[in-house]
Amino acid sequence: MRTAVLVEPNEFELEDRPRPSPGPDDVLVAVRDVGICGSDVHYYEHGRIGDYVVEDPLVLGHESAGEVVEVGENVTHHEPGDRVALEPGVPCRRCAHCKRGDYHLCEEVTFMATPPHDGAFTEYVSWPADFAYTLPEAVSTAEGALCEPLSVGIHACRRGSVGTGDTVLITGAGPIGLMVLEAARAAGATDVILTDVVDEKLTFAEERGADLTVNVTETDLDAAVAEYTDGVGADVVVEASGAEPSIKSTIDVVRRGGTVVLVGLASEAEVPIDVLELIDNEVDVHGSFRYKNTYDAAVDLLADGEVDVEGIIDFESELEDIDDAFRRAMEPTVVKGMISLDS
Amino acid sequence: MRTAVLVEPNEFELEDRPRPSPGPDDVLVAVRDVGICGSDVHYYEHGRIGDYVVEDPLVLGHESAGEVVEVGENVTHHEPGDRVALEPGVPCRRCAHCKRGDYHLCEEVTFMATPPHDGAFTEYVSWPADFAYTLPEAVSTAEGALCEPLSVGIHACRRGSVGTGDTVLITGAGPIGLMVLEAARAAGATDVILTDVVDEKLTFAEERGADLTVNVTETDLDAAVAEYTDGVGADVVVEASGAEPSIKSTIDVVRRGGTVVLVGLASEAEVPIDVLELIDNEVDVHGSFRYKNTYDAAVDLLADGEVDVEGIIDFESELEDIDDAFRRAMEPTVVKGMISLDS
Amino acid sequence: MRTAVLVEPNEFELEDRPRPSPGPDDVLVAVRDVGICGSDVHYYEHGRIGDYVVEDPLVLGHESAGEVVEVGENVTHHEPGDRVALEPGVPCRRCAHCKRGDYHLCEEVTFMATPPHDGAFTEYVSWPADFAYTLPEAVSTAEGALCEPLSVGIHACRRGSVGTGDTVLITGAGPIGLMVLEAARAAGATDVILTDVVDEKLTFAEERGADLTVNVTETDLDAAVAEYTDGVGADVVVEASGAEPSIKSTIDVVRRGGTVVLVGLASEAEVPIDVLELIDNEVDVHGSFRYKNTYDAAVDLLADGEVDVEGIIDFESELEDIDDAFRRAMEPTVVKGMISLDS
Amino acid sequence: MRTAVLVEPNEFELEDRPRPSPGPDDVLVAVRDVGICGSDVHYYEHGRIGDYVVEDPLVLGHESAGEVVEVGENVTHHEPGDRVALEPGVPCRRCAHCKRGDYHLCEEVTFMATPPHDGAFTEYVSWPADFAYTLPEAVSTAEGALCEPLSVGIHACRRGSVGTGDTVLITGAGPIGLMVLEAARAAGATDVILTDVVDEKLTFAEERGADLTVNVTETDLDAAVAEYTDGVGADVVVEASGAEPSIKSTIDVVRRGGTVVLVGLASEAEVPIDVLELIDNEVDVHGSFRYKNTYDAAVDLLADGEVDVEGIIDFESELEDIDDAFRRAMEPTVVKGMISLDS
Repeated sequence: MRTAVLVEPNEFELEDRPRPSPGPDDVLVAVRDVGICGSDVHYYEHGRIGDYVVEDPLVLGHESAGEVVEVGENVTHHEPGDRVALEPGVPCRRCAHCKRGDYHLCEEVTFMATPPHDGAFTEYVSWPADFAYTLPEAVSTAEGALCEPLSVGIHACRRGSVGTGDTVLITGAGPIGLMVLEAARAAGATDVILTDVVDEKLTFAEERGADLTVNVTETDLDAAVAEYTDGVGADVVVEASGAEPSIKSTIDVVRRGGTVVLVGLASEAEVPIDVLELIDNEVDVHGSFRYKNTYDAAVDLLADGEVDVEGIIDFESELEDIDDAFRRAMEPTVVKGMISLDS
Repeated sequence: MRTAVLVEPNEFELEDRPRPSPGPDDVLVAVRDVGICGSDVHYYEHGRIGDYVVEDPLVLGHESAGEVVEVGENVTHHEPGDRVALEPGVPCRRCAHCKRGDYHLCEEVTFMATPPHDGAFTEYVSWPADFAYTLPEAVSTAEGALCEPLSVGIHACRRGSVGTGDTVLITGAGPIGLMVLEAARAAGATDVILTDVVDEKLTFAEERGADLTVNVTETDLDAAVAEYTDGVGADVVVEASGAEPSIKSTIDVVRRGGTVVLVGLASEAEVPIDVLELIDNEVDVHGSFRYKNTYDAAVDLLADGEVDVEGIIDFESELEDIDDAFRRAMEPTVVKGMISLDS
Repeated sequence: MRTAVLVEPNEFELEDRPRPSPGPDDVLVAVRDVGICGSDVHYYEHGRIGDYVVEDPLVLGHESAGEVVEVGENVTHHEPGDRVALEPGVPCRRCAHCKRGDYHLCEEVTFMATPPHDGAFTEYVSWPADFAYTLPEAVSTAEGALCEPLSVGIHACRRGSVGTGDTVLITGAGPIGLMVLEAARAAGATDVILTDVVDEKLTFAEERGADLTVNVTETDLDAAVAEYTDGVGADVVVEASGAEPSIKSTIDVVRRGGTVVLVGLASEAEVPIDVLELIDNEVDVHGSFRYKNTYDAAVDLLADGEVDVEGIIDFESELEDIDDAFRRAMEPTVVKGMISLDS
Repeated sequence: MRTAVLVEPNEFELEDRPRPSPGPDDVLVAVRDVGICGSDVHYYEHGRIGDYVVEDPLVLGHESAGEVVEVGENVTHHEPGDRVALEPGVPCRRCAHCKRGDYHLCEEVTFMATPPHDGAFTEYVSWPADFAYTLPEAVSTAEGALCEPLSVGIHACRRGSVGTGDTVLITGAGPIGLMVLEAARAAGATDVILTDVVDEKLTFAEERGADLTVNVTETDLDAAVAEYTDGVGADVVVEASGAEPSIKSTIDVVRRGGTVVLVGLASEAEVPIDVLELIDNEVDVHGSFRYKNTYDAAVDLLADGEVDVEGIIDFESELEDIDDAFRRAMEPTVVKGMISLDS
């Protein structure tokens, strides 16, 4: 099977690899669509993300969906022909985190496209059947692949307990910020504010339903939020930019007793936080890491048309053009590129 | 001021009463719209609801909105000309319930149209300013009045922790069931099933977005839910009919580990519940009483167009025709009648 | 290995069975102490509990602890010589319940001594290592075995969100009621009331720290609770008797906005519940089924001396005397009998 | 009545002030015991705490209890002779925070000894009856006064959801850290670790039940916690020192998916926090501000002997000696000084 392998930074090689056989609890999936994530691009450019270093050739890609072509002997809920989205992280199922339902915090997780685990830029993937989610007719495999970033948005909103009538401020209008916007709306947020430093992104966010957008290079965010909320502040602030000034600002714009969710990966580990304000206003700050138990909800929201993910796709390329696709994905105005494989 | 007073069962008298003066923390509101609630009709017909007996002439009506015409000396957040929805229950603010934020459970609550407290079928009401919620331009006073039943729906969904991707079953397609439908959709429910015994109501529910409706006089509910949910059951069941068979059925159709919310007032106090099933499936059963902290959310959802309440209004009458309006409100196919006063 | 097998109601047979070999993720445990649970006695007497029918010879016993004698190849957290308590229910690890952390609700659970799964009245048990919990020196294997009923108490208190300063009413002073008493105290309850119909049990509960006991055959419970709580009611009521009158009474004695936990298995499936009261007082009724994620806490509480379980043991017998032991366990004043195997 | 008034930094003046009359909802309390809090000492030394500046003469003291000598006309739950603890913050009862039950976040709160509101170093205080809590015989007025710091501990533990079996790390063994220790134990924590930089304080903490103490000037905290918790980390970390290095360390010593509570007022507003770690480990960081709905629990815990507050009292002085008492309270080894008035 054709497989795009990152052999060194900035260089994919198309290899022919043997097609895997599914284990007894697995499904074998013919991959159809795979999104290019910022982390894929980061590995492509730099060969590492923090402590995760690409030492051996690696298959990238963890936003994927396809068609089941074979099932293991114990698999009863899937059959060949099912179109499925693949949740890319499979936990140990045995540790305290797994037993608590926090399987996304499992230290032994196998996560696609995180060294040393291969991802989905390939023709076939064998994957545990319970981490493959059937797509109804109304949901395309491209949408199925984007259940992954949508899951990040759903999980962040759950971490912030976003509910009906809430005012939600999202810092950063990239793919994660836009997915948080979708998830927040779906959860009942009635006022959603987005910030960014690029006007085009904010215009796009407005087209997708933001009630207010703020370019923080031009406008004082505190003042803008105070005016919009009658001085109260946002019920929930979701930090999706990873930029230090945005992270710092969250404590200023959240309302007293409100919640800050940090999901954007910071470029600097240490960020000065106003802890006096955090205490005095009794703010909750919740880290949000990946997601858990979101795929069923993501598929249902897509099937219902409650959220839109296809609108963020800028282009689709073939596996053969993956180098081009990655270079294009690096352009600042591109939100999401996809690799599509023939059916 | 003209005031419709229930002097004995089935008989309103239009009296001329002195216009009240607002206290220091109150607003004086010129009433514009008042919904006719099932409880109003019940008092009208029977002169009592359970232990609450109409002993003295009573003004009914607790779903109201109007225009502020005067404000007390301490009131800073309202001014004459503001259009406001009135939350009808004002608590003592001092008991343990109030301090916990459960002010709706306050034993000393003053609740409109509950003996001995007068309601809103009158020209002017003086009311604590903090229980008057400003309506933005996009929200009419008729919608403002219906923030009350919408609040019942929002609170029931909060009691059931309805969230994104949930399957919600609502028993009873009357005004409360329909408001729960609106609130559940707004909170992210992707599958909403409604039951009733009247086909017209179910057709109406379908037009308003129910994914599945079940006439429980014709169809086996367990089988229908099992089929729709692949044998799993509903994540949340909201009982909004008050009918004994529906109350009993909730335990059968909720999923293992799911939540039942009881909001419809039962006609019989005691209903046989399958407690073995409740324990074995670790079901949560939550009573839902009125609402708390819902009006801001209700107004925001209406302003956003996220929910529709005007669509349930069957007719509007003038205060002078209140007897006719109540008789019409008793017809089984009528969902909601309104009394509208001239501005 | 010697194994006590229930061959038909009221008859154990001591068989010699082959000693099992641990699988790669298992530990082989030499059983030391096994508690006799009410469900064991029920199977012994009647050969069934509801839909669970003993069709083939069955090994009873699910409250067990022992010593690790062999470990599977993947096992890193245990080694021969470790003394361990065994959590008797092992879930599928793959279904939606397991992923949510509600592994106790898994439909595919393997539960000791529930047909067709054998239990622990035997010399050796092979069990998944992650459901074996190491006992520190301060905790005996008899205490380890009683982590099981203690877990029922801990889980019930968690289901009721028992916290510091709470008043907790427990109906039924049998083993479960007594374990709820221990768990409620440990969780910060400052007032614990127990009810029963047998004075000896209430006296015992008082000796173990109940603040008030009520024999409901002699004293009006509503009046007693009203007096003790200044008319407020209990914050949390844990129903641990399974008796219909007790189940019904829970709604009357819980405070407005309080929580009822149903844990005692009712003798009748359907019990008339005052749903009007449940709604009007916005009560939460939570079924409590077995337990999840409790064993670590149980062991820690025992190691700290925060709870006492050994005090409920009435007698210890040898495996050879299991028929006698079961007959003794049926006596109404016996709280807990144990089978102890030689080390 | 004799009243100690802070007229300028480091100078009290004993004035004779008119005894207040209770309003209709108030009780007049003859003050018996008042604790000296770190914030009192800070005002005494510096005349300000952050933005709160003592511009006019101020009565300090907000940890108080006494005896009711007169009640307002609406007061039904208290009568002369009752001994009561006074909760020092009285909210507006009308804002969104108050209605949510977060009355401690009310922006209009009247808080004793916070400019411009007078405190309790005086003979009589008139106070809203619903913020006066009756002390049973078993609880002294000195203990009643210390319900205030105990409340800080209870609230911090609730903010951290401390429960049975939890491992809790408390940074700082001053009065707040010690009260968190008491509250954590009462809530079921089985392992409590305390840190400080003063050995005497750690020895005292050990005498009061800490399982492990760490002098962070001598011992590497990460290593000590990793060893104690088998590399897992603490379930809950409560930061009670306000020291920047301690605040920073919380993220390192909390377990993955655990909770950090910040309660100690930082000396620097901005503290560098490792947000990457916070996100990667999905940590919750909760500010904890004063307390709400804790006094009933505090009194009950004291009545039960579940917590000890008297043991932290180093000395009791008379009102006449308040200057001496404050100077003594500044000594580093003093935990708590009290002012006691004659009965």
